[in-house]
Amino acid sequence: MITPDEFKAAFRLHPAGVALITADPSGTPIALTASSVSAVSADPPLVMFSVSVQSSSAEVLRRAETVVIHLLASHNVDLAVLGATSGVDRFADTGRWSRLSTGEPVFDDAHTWLRAQVLHRIDAGGSTVFVCTGIQARLAETASTDGLVYRNRTWHRVGADSVVELPQLVAG
Amino acid sequence: MITPDEFKAAFRLHPAGVALITADPSGTPIALTASSVSAVSADPPLVMFSVSVQSSSAEVLRRAETVVIHLLASHNVDLAVLGATSGVDRFADTGRWSRLSTGEPVFDDAHTWLRAQVLHRIDAGGSTVFVCTGIQARLAETASTDGLVYRNRTWHRVGADSVVELPQLVAG
Repeated sequence: MITPDEFKAAFRLHPAGVALITADPSGTPIALTASSVSAVSADPPLVMFSVSVQSSSAEVLRRAETVVIHLLASHNVDLAVLGATSGVDRFADTGRWSRLSTGEPVFDDAHTWLRAQVLHRIDAGGSTVFVCTGIQARLAETASTDGLVYRNRTWHRVGADSVVELPQLVAG
Repeated sequence: MITPDEFKAAFRLHPAGVALITADPSGTPIALTASSVSAVSADPPLVMFSVSVQSSSAEVLRRAETVVIHLLASHNVDLAVLGATSGVDRFADTGRWSRLSTGEPVFDDAHTWLRAQVLHRIDAGGSTVFVCTGIQARLAETASTDGLVYRNRTWHRVGADSVVELPQLVAG
């Protein structure tokens, strides 16, 4: 088995898209930044993410039947920071968020979000893996927005300026 | 429930780090590119990823007890393309890969890889979610390598040139 430090070193340089996850199972909304969101299946529409049990929002999140997964663009980096900062009231700026008719908080600056129903909560080491079905979506109106990536403790932008030119595949 | 097309549209713009996963449970090595690899827990060291059952390697991968997860850098984009291209022999260039003493194939250009034991295989829609424990690692010798990201059907580079400047958090 490798050590926790080796494991963290391996993943520190692995880039990840950034999402802000909100829920409100108990009348007190929560929001947390997650870099583990990934699409599992399109038909049925399934998405998964993991959250450390040490996260301040973990206990409330485990009780949620539905969540809103905001897929953040680079201009949403302030939302990513907000959801990753300890000890702040993430809902203090009441002009930034509203509630869906079903009650979940949404941050209106996010160009894409999914409302999803939690299907499975799987305990895995010091984290919980959530598998959810998409039940409602707001889709970006344009594909020209840059994406937001977290890597090596830093926020990054991906878009037209970061495209990699493909080399020719060399035959063996 | 949202449609598969809406779900795909939502995730098309969500950036993801890129990995090449190899295994050889049956004497015929497999390699496939995955953009769903994420760290779940550092202690114990747990990693998860999902693979579509439609992938040509899915059936062999389900039989694997161990896998090697190569976390790719931008200069490894040819490995990412190789593992994502249908109908090619991904092991044809015998100078590019070798075998660990435990038998798994490794592509030597990858600066970081984890050998991991499969703990759980979870059926989820048209995919299988794998949860694995890290048991051996090769770590990058330098943090100066750029990362590789997949977004909107395009490969991207993240590194010093893609850093986002942080705005000041505005109090509510």
